[in-house]
Amino acid sequence: MVATDNAHKPGKMASFDLMVYLKARQKLCEDALDKSLPMSYPDKIYESMRYSLLAGGKRLRPILCLATCEMMGGTIEMSMPTACAVEMIHTMSLIHDDLPAMDNDDYRRGKLTNHKIYGDDIAILAGDGLLAYAFEYVATRTQNVPLDRLLQVVARLGRAVGAAGLVGGQVVDLESEGKSDTTLETLTFIHNHKTGALLEACVVCGGIIAGASPDDIQKLTRYSQNIGLAFQIIDDILDITATNEQLGKTAGKDQKAQKVTYPKLWGLEESQKQAEKLIEEACTELNSYGEKAQPLIALAHFITSRNH
Amino acid sequence: MVATDNAHKPGKMASFDLMVYLKARQKLCEDALDKSLPMSYPDKIYESMRYSLLAGGKRLRPILCLATCEMMGGTIEMSMPTACAVEMIHTMSLIHDDLPAMDNDDYRRGKLTNHKIYGDDIAILAGDGLLAYAFEYVATRTQNVPLDRLLQVVARLGRAVGAAGLVGGQVVDLESEGKSDTTLETLTFIHNHKTGALLEACVVCGGIIAGASPDDIQKLTRYSQNIGLAFQIIDDILDITATNEQLGKTAGKDQKAQKVTYPKLWGLEESQKQAEKLIEEACTELNSYGEKAQPLIALAHFITSRNH
Repeated sequence: MVATDNAHKPGKMASFDLMVYLKARQKLCEDALDKSLPMSYPDKIYESMRYSLLAGGKRLRPILCLATCEMMGGTIEMSMPTACAVEMIHTMSLIHDDLPAMDNDDYRRGKLTNHKIYGDDIAILAGDGLLAYAFEYVATRTQNVPLDRLLQVVARLGRAVGAAGLVGGQVVDLESEGKSDTTLETLTFIHNHKTGALLEACVVCGGIIAGASPDDIQKLTRYSQNIGLAFQIIDDILDITATNEQLGKTAGKDQKAQKVTYPKLWGLEESQKQAEKLIEEACTELNSYGEKAQPLIALAHFITSRNH
Repeated sequence: MVATDNAHKPGKMASFDLMVYLKARQKLCEDALDKSLPMSYPDKIYESMRYSLLAGGKRLRPILCLATCEMMGGTIEMSMPTACAVEMIHTMSLIHDDLPAMDNDDYRRGKLTNHKIYGDDIAILAGDGLLAYAFEYVATRTQNVPLDRLLQVVARLGRAVGAAGLVGGQVVDLESEGKSDTTLETLTFIHNHKTGALLEACVVCGGIIAGASPDDIQKLTRYSQNIGLAFQIIDDILDITATNEQLGKTAGKDQKAQKVTYPKLWGLEESQKQAEKLIEEACTELNSYGEKAQPLIALAHFITSRNH
């Protein structure tokens, strides 16, 4: 496993320094996101959209998109508009999720949530604006990518965020709130859709842009589904074990909302084990890509070792 | 002018019966919309999306899209997925606009609004789902249209609904509420964006799908901008003169919200005159298309003669 806090740890990935890689990629993404949405009239909506889009975060989703595109022989330039689009979509889902009518959260990444600053009406519109702009951005800003691939990206992104993806997962999540008899099957549906669908789209779209074959797409799909579920298991664990400060948002929310979580079904230790197993399986899918898979493998391990 | 309630009125458009045309096109659109979004798990979100998407209405937007595509030499089949997409986007904007955090409306088209039936959380998600699905639908269901045109459609639709379009118009509208000193310039910005941008996208996308030239696109743009503004002037007039029953929504809302409207700036009679002038100018743009322009010309006149 790759250590995330010790760049000198020996092992087969010793030559790859994830922290240096992440820092460089985060910088690239921050710059691209900043440029993607310049201020314009009416100021208030652009300010609101930029407030949440540029509120930091690990930028895991765009980085996964860029890394997959590169692994499959594409370039950062080819995939950056799509990488920005997935972060716009992710940001939209956070803004709407935090609304009083939804999770009613005051803090996100250690900052006041969008509606606490701009009001519920502007927050709803900022989400709508970001979602629409994501598709416009992919369609107008991508260069040197065959058009059939771009249309596949549009279709995949749409599916990942709609009722067959993120939105569907959120609905089942809302329905299961306060219910103590939620099954493992339902819990997995929620996460495969609420978190998994967009993570999968990040990875698969990166591959599509680079011209991945159907066989490659299958491997990428399994890799991303495994890390998506592991990501959510770790999220559940952190909700119990981490502090508000570490999370930058309210900890202990799941318990308060009486949500069924993996630690509740499996216990903390078994949950951690399951997450690690999923990550190992995810990495196995990338065996055939050799050294080129280093970033995606390191990113997968990073997900289980993060503490916020 | 074309009579909308008298198919036998003599004149150069006598051979074209708009009411028969509209009825047939509405049926086509209803069927296509019904098929576009079949029920699936989780039921609640699909029910909610279908509730608003299939709540009737004049279907002016999809009909404009189909009519423009045909005028420019394309077919209904080529443009139907985009026609459905514009209605999905329009429906999303209505669902979000009706929310308590926005206009707080209980009725729409004579039926309870989405959030009154499904709750604010599901209504927010239903809008998000419809918006995302619109793009997926265009990208996956359009056949026999060159891919570069489809990507232009995706870009135009995204722009029409985002901060540079509908969302931007809504923000300025919200900001001007309760202000009695809103200028004509601001009022026109609001409507050009809140209503005009999507109407323009319907018409222009229909043209793009059929392979319209840049010169054609310019004419279509001017036609649609004129009818968009006329549409809004008539909306303002109807808010004053029509009853709740005729509108299927709350009448007199603008006055109650102390919104500046065209009748307030110009008076009722001058507003009606201005709307008719805009429609005449819109139709002049279509002179070169001869008989083929009959549906778009009749649709333009229909907008000023409607009473709901």
